[in-house]
Amino acid sequence: MDNPRLQAWIDRIDTELVRLFAKKDLSSNPLDRAMEYTALAGGKRLRPLLTMVACAECGGDADAALPMALASELLHTYSLIHDDLPCMDDDAMRRGKPANHVIFGEANAILAGDALQAEAFRVLATAPCPGLDPARRVRIIAEFAETAGRAGLVAGQVMDLGDAGKATDLERLEQLHRRKTGKLLRFCVRLGGHAAGAGEAVMDGLTRYAEAVGLLFQVVDDLLDEEGDGAALGKTPGKDARQAKATFPKLMGAAKAHAYADRLLAEASEALAALPQAAPLLAEIARYIRRRDY
Amino acid sequence: MDNPRLQAWIDRIDTELVRLFAKKDLSSNPLDRAMEYTALAGGKRLRPLLTMVACAECGGDADAALPMALASELLHTYSLIHDDLPCMDDDAMRRGKPANHVIFGEANAILAGDALQAEAFRVLATAPCPGLDPARRVRIIAEFAETAGRAGLVAGQVMDLGDAGKATDLERLEQLHRRKTGKLLRFCVRLGGHAAGAGEAVMDGLTRYAEAVGLLFQVVDDLLDEEGDGAALGKTPGKDARQAKATFPKLMGAAKAHAYADRLLAEASEALAALPQAAPLLAEIARYIRRRDY
Repeated sequence: MDNPRLQAWIDRIDTELVRLFAKKDLSSNPLDRAMEYTALAGGKRLRPLLTMVACAECGGDADAALPMALASELLHTYSLIHDDLPCMDDDAMRRGKPANHVIFGEANAILAGDALQAEAFRVLATAPCPGLDPARRVRIIAEFAETAGRAGLVAGQVMDLGDAGKATDLERLEQLHRRKTGKLLRFCVRLGGHAAGAGEAVMDGLTRYAEAVGLLFQVVDDLLDEEGDGAALGKTPGKDARQAKATFPKLMGAAKAHAYADRLLAEASEALAALPQAAPLLAEIARYIRRRDY
Repeated sequence: MDNPRLQAWIDRIDTELVRLFAKKDLSSNPLDRAMEYTALAGGKRLRPLLTMVACAECGGDADAALPMALASELLHTYSLIHDDLPCMDDDAMRRGKPANHVIFGEANAILAGDALQAEAFRVLATAPCPGLDPARRVRIIAEFAETAGRAGLVAGQVMDLGDAGKATDLERLEQLHRRKTGKLLRFCVRLGGHAAGAGEAVMDGLTRYAEAVGLLFQVVDDLLDEEGDGAALGKTPGKDARQAKATFPKLMGAAKAHAYADRLLAEASEALAALPQAAPLLAEIARYIRRRDY
């Protein structure tokens, strides 16, 4: 991210994550070490960043949104750890390092994921957020649970595993990704709006932006898996092809997938244009997602 | 449970669980089937029952507490599914049926557990509970997350796996069980108090009752594993010995473990005696836990 303001926020996210894991009460067990191993292993921190930026561009205080924003990174980390397990995607590398189960074993990796999910909810329920009333906090937690569960992230992973090797169409592929990654990105952006006390019209604009960006993220991910460089990605490219997973370039062809990504970027920009105030940083993040190479 | 009032509540819990899983939006995927397979496979429903009874005996309406009470059963079910996995306790039978992973495979069993945890939080955030203000609901969710996560249930399972085959002492065994089962039973009883709008003094009495009952539950579980009948238990007895796990009868001897169970029952009764009103059903549940044979 070359924008210094965004990079400063990413650095603050990293610092707060370290602080969160420094509050250990069980230093002698392998659980905390397994949790923090993947949580602190780097990553783009796109999810909490989206919350901070959305909060700031809805007139709120980005720093006030940061403690709650960490919940999405914890949920994301748990899903990575479980996805990499031998009985799932069987991936030995993550964020440029050996996957969690390679270091800590399968049992501890599963349990670290389980504890990270609980920790994500604990953060949402307890993190300070000045001005956020309890009723809205309850609504946030309900949205997060919906995002995480049987109609969201987990359902997406079930579709991902079940559809591998089968003929699928674009509609089903989009549904899969809306669940597996789109809903969480949508939650992150909306959380920023909630933290800023945004009204329903603004929440709707943020939601449309987030839905376009969520799909854009996945289309670019698929393109990178076909065209990208393993060292920059921190994981093995060509994995989708080996696992016989459907991807946007496979279903549409690479040229049309690039054009689709451009259209989604335009949709994201249009959604922002409907907001009552300018949102240049959200627009920049959408452009960054379009052109990223890892 | 031979008390007809308690049995009627257990029947209502079973009905509400069926209703919860009937609201499917993804009938074509294996996730909902895997989730409901273990959730609806029977079980004592002790956790939601404790919430309903505690609510009623604190002057609240047991029925009003029921929708939220289901969260604990969902969390408990997820922990059973993950505990039974080949890389954890490797148990092929649960609640008298093949374990979840035996039917649905490891990946779906892990994901069903993941989704059940999210669903538990969704229930706590969205279930109607007349008279419960949002601030107290947020506090409930925070307590639940603490119960479920890295200082609670998951930490207990990590200790359980890590300590197998090692020398341990009574203090560590109690800490393990407080985390693995005690904290959730404690949450269930306290949830009943929260739903009834109980004040801090009553919450303290409920908490002391629940902590004694939680430990009692585990001491009796260990005794049943040594002395019990497999058909009645619905799982294989003698498992702890095979897995070289520490148990109360192993560390104390069976006679002293029985005496300890009796003392914990007395502690539970004393905690109830300190409540401003009589709590005969909570007392009955404690006695039931002492004398249960499955």
